[in-house]
Amino acid sequence: MKAVQVVGYHDKLQLTDIPDPEITGPLDVIVKIGGAGVCRTDLHILEGQWAEKSQVTLPYTIGHENAGWVHAVGDAVTNVAVGDTVILHPLITCGLCRACRDGDDVHCENSDFPGIDTDGGYAEYLKTTARSVVRINDSLQPSDVAALADAGLTAYHAAAKVARMTRPGDTCVVIGAGGLGHIGIQVLDAISGVTIVVVDRNPAAVELAVEVGAHHGIVADGTHVQQILEMTGGHGAEAVLDFVGEGGATAEGIAMLRRAGNYFVVGYGENIDVPTIDVISTEINFIGNLVGSYNDLTELMTLAAQGKVTLHTTKYALDDYQQAIDDLDAGRVRGRAILIP
Amino acid sequence: MKAVQVVGYHDKLQLTDIPDPEITGPLDVIVKIGGAGVCRTDLHILEGQWAEKSQVTLPYTIGHENAGWVHAVGDAVTNVAVGDTVILHPLITCGLCRACRDGDDVHCENSDFPGIDTDGGYAEYLKTTARSVVRINDSLQPSDVAALADAGLTAYHAAAKVARMTRPGDTCVVIGAGGLGHIGIQVLDAISGVTIVVVDRNPAAVELAVEVGAHHGIVADGTHVQQILEMTGGHGAEAVLDFVGEGGATAEGIAMLRRAGNYFVVGYGENIDVPTIDVISTEINFIGNLVGSYNDLTELMTLAAQGKVTLHTTKYALDDYQQAIDDLDAGRVRGRAILIP
Amino acid sequence: MKAVQVVGYHDKLQLTDIPDPEITGPLDVIVKIGGAGVCRTDLHILEGQWAEKSQVTLPYTIGHENAGWVHAVGDAVTNVAVGDTVILHPLITCGLCRACRDGDDVHCENSDFPGIDTDGGYAEYLKTTARSVVRINDSLQPSDVAALADAGLTAYHAAAKVARMTRPGDTCVVIGAGGLGHIGIQVLDAISGVTIVVVDRNPAAVELAVEVGAHHGIVADGTHVQQILEMTGGHGAEAVLDFVGEGGATAEGIAMLRRAGNYFVVGYGENIDVPTIDVISTEINFIGNLVGSYNDLTELMTLAAQGKVTLHTTKYALDDYQQAIDDLDAGRVRGRAILIP
Amino acid sequence: MKAVQVVGYHDKLQLTDIPDPEITGPLDVIVKIGGAGVCRTDLHILEGQWAEKSQVTLPYTIGHENAGWVHAVGDAVTNVAVGDTVILHPLITCGLCRACRDGDDVHCENSDFPGIDTDGGYAEYLKTTARSVVRINDSLQPSDVAALADAGLTAYHAAAKVARMTRPGDTCVVIGAGGLGHIGIQVLDAISGVTIVVVDRNPAAVELAVEVGAHHGIVADGTHVQQILEMTGGHGAEAVLDFVGEGGATAEGIAMLRRAGNYFVVGYGENIDVPTIDVISTEINFIGNLVGSYNDLTELMTLAAQGKVTLHTTKYALDDYQQAIDDLDAGRVRGRAILIP
Repeated sequence: MKAVQVVGYHDKLQLTDIPDPEITGPLDVIVKIGGAGVCRTDLHILEGQWAEKSQVTLPYTIGHENAGWVHAVGDAVTNVAVGDTVILHPLITCGLCRACRDGDDVHCENSDFPGIDTDGGYAEYLKTTARSVVRINDSLQPSDVAALADAGLTAYHAAAKVARMTRPGDTCVVIGAGGLGHIGIQVLDAISGVTIVVVDRNPAAVELAVEVGAHHGIVADGTHVQQILEMTGGHGAEAVLDFVGEGGATAEGIAMLRRAGNYFVVGYGENIDVPTIDVISTEINFIGNLVGSYNDLTELMTLAAQGKVTLHTTKYALDDYQQAIDDLDAGRVRGRAILIP
Repeated sequence: MKAVQVVGYHDKLQLTDIPDPEITGPLDVIVKIGGAGVCRTDLHILEGQWAEKSQVTLPYTIGHENAGWVHAVGDAVTNVAVGDTVILHPLITCGLCRACRDGDDVHCENSDFPGIDTDGGYAEYLKTTARSVVRINDSLQPSDVAALADAGLTAYHAAAKVARMTRPGDTCVVIGAGGLGHIGIQVLDAISGVTIVVVDRNPAAVELAVEVGAHHGIVADGTHVQQILEMTGGHGAEAVLDFVGEGGATAEGIAMLRRAGNYFVVGYGENIDVPTIDVISTEINFIGNLVGSYNDLTELMTLAAQGKVTLHTTKYALDDYQQAIDDLDAGRVRGRAILIP
Repeated sequence: MKAVQVVGYHDKLQLTDIPDPEITGPLDVIVKIGGAGVCRTDLHILEGQWAEKSQVTLPYTIGHENAGWVHAVGDAVTNVAVGDTVILHPLITCGLCRACRDGDDVHCENSDFPGIDTDGGYAEYLKTTARSVVRINDSLQPSDVAALADAGLTAYHAAAKVARMTRPGDTCVVIGAGGLGHIGIQVLDAISGVTIVVVDRNPAAVELAVEVGAHHGIVADGTHVQQILEMTGGHGAEAVLDFVGEGGATAEGIAMLRRAGNYFVVGYGENIDVPTIDVISTEINFIGNLVGSYNDLTELMTLAAQGKVTLHTTKYALDDYQQAIDDLDAGRVRGRAILIP
Repeated sequence: MKAVQVVGYHDKLQLTDIPDPEITGPLDVIVKIGGAGVCRTDLHILEGQWAEKSQVTLPYTIGHENAGWVHAVGDAVTNVAVGDTVILHPLITCGLCRACRDGDDVHCENSDFPGIDTDGGYAEYLKTTARSVVRINDSLQPSDVAALADAGLTAYHAAAKVARMTRPGDTCVVIGAGGLGHIGIQVLDAISGVTIVVVDRNPAAVELAVEVGAHHGIVADGTHVQQILEMTGGHGAEAVLDFVGEGGATAEGIAMLRRAGNYFVVGYGENIDVPTIDVISTEINFIGNLVGSYNDLTELMTLAAQGKVTLHTTKYALDDYQQAIDDLDAGRVRGRAILIP
């Protein structure tokens, strides 16, 4: 089959022909790829930033946001059947460690990460296991939802925590009106009663965020912390959902937070640097957020099937992978770039 | 009545005679003080450190850890009666704001703090309201429990959160084997199934902490982070309960924490300074902890009445307040110093 | 002022002139009534069904679903000011018992219930306390929201529990498409991701329920349990929200419930009669639901102000109270009847 | 190997020689049995009561409470190794359905139940999978803990729910001072702050329950409901944990329950028959309880290893299975009967 592989760091990706994957274990699943998201992480991989962490052996097939149709299954697979439309959870998890047994499979002690440390989805077929495939509504196109598999799942996971930890009438400030921000806003709008206030430096992004569901948009212009405080009677917001995490976002976000409020960390880059006296005297919490669980992905796919969460995508044939990569690197992609084999 | 008052910052406290407090409102309660804790905060007040924050008018009566017996009540008081043994929640709260209505009265938007910004308990009587008095078992002596009203309540509040967020077999590292640490350990031992590991630089304190309920004691000698990791199979602890918050405790505590673990901030002094990438890649949380709620104090008094939480105290007559202050300042008090009018 | 009073059981209500209420305590609040809901419970009161339980002394002013504007306040009132638009929580609670201190004020050990055991809102003014008045958005008319104060609050309270105990993609069957059902459906639609299936014997009511937000409507025709099972892959629904509670609803509702599902009891009339072996072998729960808390009412008013929860009302002048009562008794009221002084 | 099998309903069990089980799949685990509990369910199986439900093909090996040592493992097993001491969760679960993915594996949609619908543990070896084996502390003897695998796990699961839903000072009434009651009491004592009140008709059983940790013992003599109400200031208990579920226990238990209280159903036999008006006007909940999850079993084994939960057992050689069965049937077993191959 055709596959796009990393052959060397600081080299270009290479389209090559490799053997089709085969079922070898009872829980194996082979997925015919219908869409593979092209992500900024892929650029970082090519730059060698993940080499040490992933310890992957080159060449290998890149692509960690994948959806498609089930092509073949092992004997013991009960949750999907050949022909099912599926999205792939980014991790292949063991199902045996305490985290997996608690439904917290993202903290699996023995996981693989296709596209990062093993073969991924820039290819015609991908081999995974039953524990990673989420059956989705046939009305959904793999190429439309593939990019929800990782970035979207992270935003859902964090926004669903906000929903569980707030009540109608509470305010949630969303810092960052990019791709994750848009997913987060749609999720908050669909499943919570919070008043959503989005903050971003880019006026156009703020406008778009209001269109997808934010109740108030604020352009970060130096008065934005003050504006949030004024909107909340001087108290601050019950929740801050930070998709930025750099450029001073955390200090500003903390200043926007109400006593006993929760700060949800999703974006990263800078340090959280906060006096312990402030943490205890206002009794605030900082909540870390990684990608969501398998069941989170199921829930996000429900919202997608209901049309409550959508994503703008730009599609490329698999053979045009270099164009997609170049467009992403140059900032020419509207929404997410998707490869279609 | 006799009262010990702050008459000027950087001056000594002064014993004086002031009018007895009187019932003026329907929810007023006057308590005959049976014990008033002498706290390091009292030393800081005298040094003027609280002057700006509290905006209190001098002279005023100091003392914020109080217990005694109900001496008089207003018409609308239904929760206590004259003669009841009571401990006083440190705050006088409004009962009307959203926080109060949620049982989260510590975040009351309109609270007073006797001993800090209004007359406190270094006196024969103290005037408070029905919302601040917790009736306690008659078997408890006010002078034995007074010091649980603030410091002990803070430790209880944090330890009870640990209990709710852990399961039997999880590990909780307690950083700091001082007064709060001892209360925290006793609470964890009484109401949770965690394995309690205490860490302190002082070998004698560690030994004492093990006597009151810690399952393992570790003297902080530079190998302590490594020891915790070894005890937990390399994973770290599900919870870190930090009563120190300075001198590098937070960086060490974070290094001891397991993926998806919770870091409970109680002690303060230094900054939490942690890369957002670390927060999200391990999905850890930081949980702020202030003093407990009124209901928390009720629960702590249950544990005290059951003998599950005890505190060592050194008692002084009210007239000997200067001796108590001097002993505390010189590090000569074993356990907590208590004034008895 | 004018007031409509119960003068004898099995007698007609009587419009009379009584003295205006006056502020006598620091937490008192006098509300100028803007709307008072006429409820089926009012008919039951006149029939004497509440006489023994309420122990009210006749004559007294009826009306337990009230909203209006603050007319006067006592010295200690901090949460509302004269002129504020307010809705009244049905209970006057003590703020001192453990339930009140936990935010669970509906279980207050010392509460009054205006309109039931003390003077209510079929009048020009009503005297209550600061703990019962919820300030609402000035865009809301008291006469539009008064009926949300009790019946609506009950539906909100139960539906908000469903929202907290379910995830997107779960199914919630709503039994009963009447007034409470409509509120419940609107709340579920606004703050949860459940698929809402409404069941009622009345095809017109089912149709209306679908218009206000139910995703599927089923007319109860004997095949409805089977239809629910088919819609849920044979498993049943994760939640059943029962606003009927009589005529066999509970047995049918239990048959619709998935393993580990939650059955929310709101409507009443018949017994729950279920083998303990069925409860444990499927591990289902039955969740009782009374009226919501003060904070629940705040949240419901947020949803009302956002236009997410609306109620159809038929308005009458206070003087026309007998017409309203007669219309309600005869089933001639569309939505809820409201008296306007 | 030797195995004791059901060869016909209403027949005696039969000791026979069958082939040793072998590893055939990558997640298979073969356990050398160190102890197999003899349970009243085994008597019911022989009477044919489970025949229709289990659909098991005779002959098959009975025994569903098993512990031992790992004898062999498949290629993909990562959670245990040959030689490990293990206890077996009663179910073999799929790990793929939504319930399994939520840590709620007891509601697995595709589970087997060794000893009930497939070969169990009255044998030298038992074949199971990696998902059913819990590694336990080497200090624990399989024959000492085997009976905790099912009955004990059920008691733990329910008591741990009580612990999570109560606070120190709340009262939990335990109905039934038999085997499950003793486990439940020990668990409550170890991980919660509730006041434990045990009720049973048998004075000796009540006495024993107090010895293992109940704070108060009440012999059910007709005044017991009244006694509970008096102990709780007329309010009733925050929690009732009912291990009986027959003979009028549920009506009495409901009468002991406080407003907003939780009734935990574990024992079964009679119906819960309660007016919906009572459920809603007191806002009580009924919580079903089945056996605990895999992680619950891990937690229970932690408490067992700490000596906080112990069980009295009477041990028999496997060859003496008939004696054990006869003793159980005749009520001659103190604690639980255990077969040791």
